[in-house]
Amino acid sequence: MKPIRLIAFTMLATLALALSAQAADPLPSWNDGPAKQAIVEFVSATTDKSSPKFVPPEARIATFDQDGTTWVSHPIYTQAMFALDRVGVLAPQHPEWKEQEPFKAVLTGDREAMAKFTEQDWERIVAATHAGMSTEAFLEIVKQWLATAKHPRFKRPYTELVYQPMLEVMDYLRANGFKTYIVTGGGQEFVRVYSERVYGIPPEQVVGSSIATKYEYQNGKPVLMREPKVFFIDDNAGKAIGINLFIGKRPYAAFGNSGGDREMLEWTQAGDGPRLMMLVLHDDAKREYAYGPAGGLPDTKVGTFSQALMDEAKKSGWVVISMKYDWRRIFAFEQ
Amino acid sequence: MKPIRLIAFTMLATLALALSAQAADPLPSWNDGPAKQAIVEFVSATTDKSSPKFVPPEARIATFDQDGTTWVSHPIYTQAMFALDRVGVLAPQHPEWKEQEPFKAVLTGDREAMAKFTEQDWERIVAATHAGMSTEAFLEIVKQWLATAKHPRFKRPYTELVYQPMLEVMDYLRANGFKTYIVTGGGQEFVRVYSERVYGIPPEQVVGSSIATKYEYQNGKPVLMREPKVFFIDDNAGKAIGINLFIGKRPYAAFGNSGGDREMLEWTQAGDGPRLMMLVLHDDAKREYAYGPAGGLPDTKVGTFSQALMDEAKKSGWVVISMKYDWRRIFAFEQ
Repeated sequence: MKPIRLIAFTMLATLALALSAQAADPLPSWNDGPAKQAIVEFVSATTDKSSPKFVPPEARIATFDQDGTTWVSHPIYTQAMFALDRVGVLAPQHPEWKEQEPFKAVLTGDREAMAKFTEQDWERIVAATHAGMSTEAFLEIVKQWLATAKHPRFKRPYTELVYQPMLEVMDYLRANGFKTYIVTGGGQEFVRVYSERVYGIPPEQVVGSSIATKYEYQNGKPVLMREPKVFFIDDNAGKAIGINLFIGKRPYAAFGNSGGDREMLEWTQAGDGPRLMMLVLHDDAKREYAYGPAGGLPDTKVGTFSQALMDEAKKSGWVVISMKYDWRRIFAFEQ
Repeated sequence: MKPIRLIAFTMLATLALALSAQAADPLPSWNDGPAKQAIVEFVSATTDKSSPKFVPPEARIATFDQDGTTWVSHPIYTQAMFALDRVGVLAPQHPEWKEQEPFKAVLTGDREAMAKFTEQDWERIVAATHAGMSTEAFLEIVKQWLATAKHPRFKRPYTELVYQPMLEVMDYLRANGFKTYIVTGGGQEFVRVYSERVYGIPPEQVVGSSIATKYEYQNGKPVLMREPKVFFIDDNAGKAIGINLFIGKRPYAAFGNSGGDREMLEWTQAGDGPRLMMLVLHDDAKREYAYGPAGGLPDTKVGTFSQALMDEAKKSGWVVISMKYDWRRIFAFEQ
């Protein structure tokens, strides 16, 4: 080879190598740092047959909380937004709501009153908006709502407000033989409407809270009617219980962001062998939100990242993901 | 080719074809007949892209009842046998049982009294034998029992008393992209102990009845304690509810054998497109048992194949599998 051609060849080869290394990064929306490193090391070790940390494919289970872990959950949970919108839609059929709390507050847009809603207030709203219809009718209503509703700040459909770095983690885990699950305090049926499209997770791998259903006949055909009665709350200890009930295997990796995920992470860690426990810290008021130990919103409710959770994370070796520092890009629509 | 060689070649070719046809039969333990034909036609149509009955792979769900459908359930359910054995094992710790029903009847082997046990009697036995331990401890107890317990008539471990023709149907469906589930009125955790080994069905694809569990700490480690409290009964309407809850997709094929499977079959059939509903009829007293419309045992309880179920099967086009005529071989250990 002539020298000039050799140089050109070497340059091209170097470029090709650099490009292929870039293409091979399974987590391009992550900045280098301890969080990204923990994920890569976990996947490498658990899939390397020569590693003492090797995990057989059938045991590779990874669970993801949803609200605040895989998509935006502020100013309120997306499903709460759905419920409030439904109160407006259903109001003409319920003239009594004009004088009846908690519906009155919703209909008059009284944000102060809504911020003080008790568990019972929310239960009444859920009963009024999530029950009294067949499972199929409910799925259709959710589908329609998701197609039109937009987030008040980002002005985009809620299903676009998923965290690109977490989608990459899911893809990366699946490419390495892990079965990925959503394990959410939110409604199981609600999430199942879009889980495949948005997360690549099929309905049967969504574990969540549910209300009771009743088997009935309508025009000779069986339907499952949604009843205004809580069946299972998949939050806090319910997440460990739900994982055992629906999956029957202990996760090797679990991702959360709040006190509601504590038991899921503890349950994951209590297994033998290599386990990865991660918590998303919302510390990026500019690109998303800052709350919990990172300041911003008050920290009194379960569902937020309390200082006690941060302390347990430190003590237990759980990896905290800083949205601000660990995520190069938060949403797919960012350039 | 010389005539003699041509003849030899033709003979060999014919033999090869015959052998390959035999090797290709996915259901060798089935006799030719309407039941086998229904299965083969269903699989061919749903997996043929040019057929109007084509079903996309992600929708291919098949559900199997267990007791009486995939394994022997006489003289009593295997899990009831387990519970009775456990009463004996635990008796030394419960001297009061000697004078206390229903335990007294179990300990004295009073078959007449046991045959008359009410739902409440069984609930007390289940509470005493299935609760008060961690989920892990329970799985270990079941595993140990299955390794040693034998069926009173067949003198073999219960896990050998699975129906070979049904195992072939499961394999055949899976080879054609179907996801197979056990949907049992029996205990979900009980079946999960052996589902992978016996049916090739992983724990997360076992839907069954369950008791409540409680998240607790023991020596600083979380455990799920089994409580003496029913959480979910996956039988009758509960099967349709359980399928929706755990799978979130409607089956295309469902297999049962008793009144407890009626709603599962109805729910399956109520979907659009091609659906296969099958019921195992126990009409082979010689090789297994004959009961229900085929005579033998009394027909008063849910859990048996009543005349009403037979009538619904005929009216609805559900396919009845005759163990006697449709199954060439019932157990793998038969020659």
